[in-house]
Amino acid sequence: MIPFNLMKNKVAYLNTGTWANKAIKEAKLFGEVVEVASSADKGFNYIPKGYNVPSDVDYLHITTNNTIAGTEIKEDLDFGVTLVADMSSDILSRPVDVSKYGIIYGGAQKNLGPAGVTFVIVREDILGKVDRQIPTMIDYRTHISKGSMFNTPPVLPVFSVLQTLKWLKGLGGVEVMQKMNEEKAALLYDEIDRNKLFKPGVPNPEDRSLMNITFVMNDEYKDLDKDFLALAAERNIVGIKGHRSVGGFRASTYNALPKDSVEVLVKAMQDFEKSE
Amino acid sequence: MIPFNLMKNKVAYLNTGTWANKAIKEAKLFGEVVEVASSADKGFNYIPKGYNVPSDVDYLHITTNNTIAGTEIKEDLDFGVTLVADMSSDILSRPVDVSKYGIIYGGAQKNLGPAGVTFVIVREDILGKVDRQIPTMIDYRTHISKGSMFNTPPVLPVFSVLQTLKWLKGLGGVEVMQKMNEEKAALLYDEIDRNKLFKPGVPNPEDRSLMNITFVMNDEYKDLDKDFLALAAERNIVGIKGHRSVGGFRASTYNALPKDSVEVLVKAMQDFEKSE
Repeated sequence: MIPFNLMKNKVAYLNTGTWANKAIKEAKLFGEVVEVASSADKGFNYIPKGYNVPSDVDYLHITTNNTIAGTEIKEDLDFGVTLVADMSSDILSRPVDVSKYGIIYGGAQKNLGPAGVTFVIVREDILGKVDRQIPTMIDYRTHISKGSMFNTPPVLPVFSVLQTLKWLKGLGGVEVMQKMNEEKAALLYDEIDRNKLFKPGVPNPEDRSLMNITFVMNDEYKDLDKDFLALAAERNIVGIKGHRSVGGFRASTYNALPKDSVEVLVKAMQDFEKSE
Repeated sequence: MIPFNLMKNKVAYLNTGTWANKAIKEAKLFGEVVEVASSADKGFNYIPKGYNVPSDVDYLHITTNNTIAGTEIKEDLDFGVTLVADMSSDILSRPVDVSKYGIIYGGAQKNLGPAGVTFVIVREDILGKVDRQIPTMIDYRTHISKGSMFNTPPVLPVFSVLQTLKWLKGLGGVEVMQKMNEEKAALLYDEIDRNKLFKPGVPNPEDRSLMNITFVMNDEYKDLDKDFLALAAERNIVGIKGHRSVGGFRASTYNALPKDSVEVLVKAMQDFEKSE
């Protein structure tokens, strides 16, 4: 929907992994795409820095959190062009200066609610600038003018989002959530760095995701992967296996995950180290 | 999505009301649209017949049930061209010969489950015939090749659909459902035809919808609209007010509505007649 609504001739994309790649592929159907930087050379295990964005692009698209490699852009970028951000997997995990973005969009199913509803925050003045005819359902202006009820809305998922937002507000909002997420992440990253069996998936601490914490066995312990997964399963730790494209382990520490659960994982890592 | 995937140059649409009109509007963005027939001249209160469909169109699009005017195409049409049917509001209300259609599609929220999930039945051999580049998410082939899981599916609505299908199968399937729907509709249409206060929204019995039964006050009782709505409300009959564009009354007798509820409405109509 982004290129449909915003792309005139040329756009810029930052390539930080699978989801960014999918977005780039779609944009290429509409015109010239400048890949301003990519971390593909190292399996997307870092966030590119020091790149330039052409001033004549219609927008720069970024994916703030990359669930597979475990990297995250945790600051609001500013290159003087319209910034479009896919925040599917880290929305509401920290305060965001919404005024810095042309569009923030994503699926709800990480921090916001169940699968089946999406969110879009769009600055209205960037719309209506393209010449192409946009099908009604794809035109952001349709949904704005109809109060997000052009089609029958998915009531169950929308209601779940409402309950999640109330819960988050009750806890103290995104500032409190950021603090909780930083505490959970520090607990686990500290153990990954300390434990002789493991190493982090993302070497540079400032690029590490607070939502998807990736780690692998150190080279000399490579054959212990399965043993650790078995121990994790024994202790009811599920979903800890890394994405099949990168291997290793991945702990998803979305807003809904309590600190206790991270402590259970850290304890398992410590016990596993002792047993070796 | 239909024109995106199927339209080369010219397509045909049957105009039977609001939903058909919306579909026509979108198709016009892609090329030439032949409106083969329209019932707009009489407020869409009948299903056009005796029209011709050009043999060189890529498809004929119909809307089988028209929720606002209360008309329904209850047979499987055959004009020798690919038939595309929006069955949002009458899918599973009767047996359909699926082999007669290129595509049957719709939203779930009438007979199938809650809002938030849609269904598409597509004959694969009609796809891949257009020259345009289709965005991945809009290309039916994407969803076929990924088993409808290209994106994270809306789990709650999909689960509700499963439960609805089990319930329907347990009752005896669409043949039994058709019989039940015909019984409910006959009960109400008979009362509308008999009762001196009311007349049907759709004069021709064969065009009358089994899903949305529309009726109005007879001309000499026109000012009783509000009184009848008040009596209905008193008896916990809700949603009986006609669509604002046509006025009068509308009883939606979707699969989920039991015959008892229709009897309550019929009784209210009879009592209202006696009180006048």
